[in-house]
Amino acid sequence: MRELKVALDERAYPILIGSGLVSGHDALARLAAGRMVAVVTDAVVAPLYLSTLRVALQPHAAALVEVVLPAGEASKTWASLDRIVDALLAAHFDRGSLLVALGGGVVGDLTGFAAAVYQRGVDYVQVPTTLLAQVDSSVGGKTAINHPLGKNMIGAFHQPRLVLADVDTLRTLPQRELSAGLAEVIKHGAIADPSYFDDVERGMGRLLERDAEALARAVEGSCRIKASVVERDEREGGLRAILNFGHTFGHAIEAGLGYGQWLHGEAVGAGMVMAADLSSRVGLLEPAVARRLTGLIAAARLPGRGPAWPAQRYLELMSVDKKAERGTPRFVLLERLGSALLRRVDDAPLRATLAACSG
Amino acid sequence: MRELKVALDERAYPILIGSGLVSGHDALARLAAGRMVAVVTDAVVAPLYLSTLRVALQPHAAALVEVVLPAGEASKTWASLDRIVDALLAAHFDRGSLLVALGGGVVGDLTGFAAAVYQRGVDYVQVPTTLLAQVDSSVGGKTAINHPLGKNMIGAFHQPRLVLADVDTLRTLPQRELSAGLAEVIKHGAIADPSYFDDVERGMGRLLERDAEALARAVEGSCRIKASVVERDEREGGLRAILNFGHTFGHAIEAGLGYGQWLHGEAVGAGMVMAADLSSRVGLLEPAVARRLTGLIAAARLPGRGPAWPAQRYLELMSVDKKAERGTPRFVLLERLGSALLRRVDDAPLRATLAACSG
Repeated sequence: MRELKVALDERAYPILIGSGLVSGHDALARLAAGRMVAVVTDAVVAPLYLSTLRVALQPHAAALVEVVLPAGEASKTWASLDRIVDALLAAHFDRGSLLVALGGGVVGDLTGFAAAVYQRGVDYVQVPTTLLAQVDSSVGGKTAINHPLGKNMIGAFHQPRLVLADVDTLRTLPQRELSAGLAEVIKHGAIADPSYFDDVERGMGRLLERDAEALARAVEGSCRIKASVVERDEREGGLRAILNFGHTFGHAIEAGLGYGQWLHGEAVGAGMVMAADLSSRVGLLEPAVARRLTGLIAAARLPGRGPAWPAQRYLELMSVDKKAERGTPRFVLLERLGSALLRRVDDAPLRATLAACSG
Repeated sequence: MRELKVALDERAYPILIGSGLVSGHDALARLAAGRMVAVVTDAVVAPLYLSTLRVALQPHAAALVEVVLPAGEASKTWASLDRIVDALLAAHFDRGSLLVALGGGVVGDLTGFAAAVYQRGVDYVQVPTTLLAQVDSSVGGKTAINHPLGKNMIGAFHQPRLVLADVDTLRTLPQRELSAGLAEVIKHGAIADPSYFDDVERGMGRLLERDAEALARAVEGSCRIKASVVERDEREGGLRAILNFGHTFGHAIEAGLGYGQWLHGEAVGAGMVMAADLSSRVGLLEPAVARRLTGLIAAARLPGRGPAWPAQRYLELMSVDKKAERGTPRFVLLERLGSALLRRVDDAPLRATLAACSG
């Protein structure tokens, strides 16, 4: 088992990465001991892992409540959050209660936000069961729900007390979701660590075959990179924005198609191709490096182009991005592998990128 | 003008107390300068003060949006919060935006919560226009909305950047709301400062006549007491719970009658009578002191008894209180004027208090 500590002063927490963790671990037993515990999951994950986790929690928890939501991005709404709160209040959950998120990023973001706002804040644990959630949403404490006008527009920063990343759960993951997770793995190398990027490029075959050791190494590598960024900028004052590489375009694609049509990682895959193209066009990045990144995204079986929309539609969708300042989007661009920065760009190269990388 | 600093490290902020503050103040102009600003208010306060505040903000803000909600506790819901978020997103408000709450506790709690969760957190200013909001909700950073199963069950701790308490706005306050605010003023003396309690007792006549100087002194005194408690316990780990004196009974009354039937301060008034009675019954407080407190609550024209419900109904309503542990309520009790503590009580004295102080 691999262990990583996210060092955020009084909000520090461990990430445990390995096999068999859904069946229980001392760290989870200690956290659950004597507390009211609610497991939140979705209708796809529940039949696979809920009973295993229940057996692990039942000897320790003072009470155990389960909330099973419909699967998919469409559940990241206030209505789902209200279902969780209903269940907690009906069972008289107090401020000392513990929530456990068992599932992918949607379950994690929603459960984390429920934990952030239930009685003004209770503890929670992440048990991510997708590669995307293991490498991305389990580090950083960003929780949120969607709004019809924008993704993740309502949320909070709320750190989990523990993350259990069980790579065994990735065996049951659909191929599309595995690729979606690899988008974030590629992103971490691209923005922060060229030698990790090399590793991922060399290991792509084993990752796609779901080799447990390769996956555990990627989860650890990605969490380590993300943790080091978040530790230096917990509230997203500046540096942390580089984690949004590919996301300005990606969020526009997700919002424009309607959440859940493309997976988040798929949209980020196409978004990184666009962001790399834009980085070249403004003279920051060598075209050969942009092509190498585009090649790795294709190797991970991710889309390399955005939907065939007029530029104006992309521009409107991007104007509500959280990195925007007064409606003008800013982009995370690469200057080389391992080095990213945030900046505004002129209209001309942006439109050229949209023309070249969509449709 | 009186000024008070709430010292919470990087979240420290000033409270300004005096006349004419809705017409503007340098501190507000500085905060609004060059930012997108949204004023949230209600249909009762808007015709009285919104245009004055608009004139104060317009020369400084880069954009100004106004959200006018229906007045009353029934607005403290997700639906109202969603209206605020809709308005902000439609106007492309970014993370650097500023919200301004102009109104009573409902507007303040709701706007504060909107600021806590909009794009995971933006700044806000409180311009409280009721005595209750000036002495209570402007200090402490507690924000929330209600749930059908309990008051303030969904919320966050989020400190304002500035509070402008304009005592001139109290001239237009209905008598019931003035009394409701006095409930919290009395509470602050009772739990923390016997000499302040004496002042309030002696000055009750001038407070009821809305003497500006007496009101400003009470707002400052109450804010000072509350700030000193909150500074020592921002996240309500322990000490801060004493501010809930009268609130366990009070919340039960509000929830049982349906929010908005009694004003919060009215419910707290009756709740303090009950809590003082309970404090005597368990041998903590001299009966003469309980009678003195009950007398001052009556002098402030507040209800001194709860609704005529069977004890069982009170007990059920109190089991979801946020101070409850696993469904068992805990009570803030007085041991003398100026000294309060949190504890569980036996069923017998609790039922005796409910019988003696309701109906």
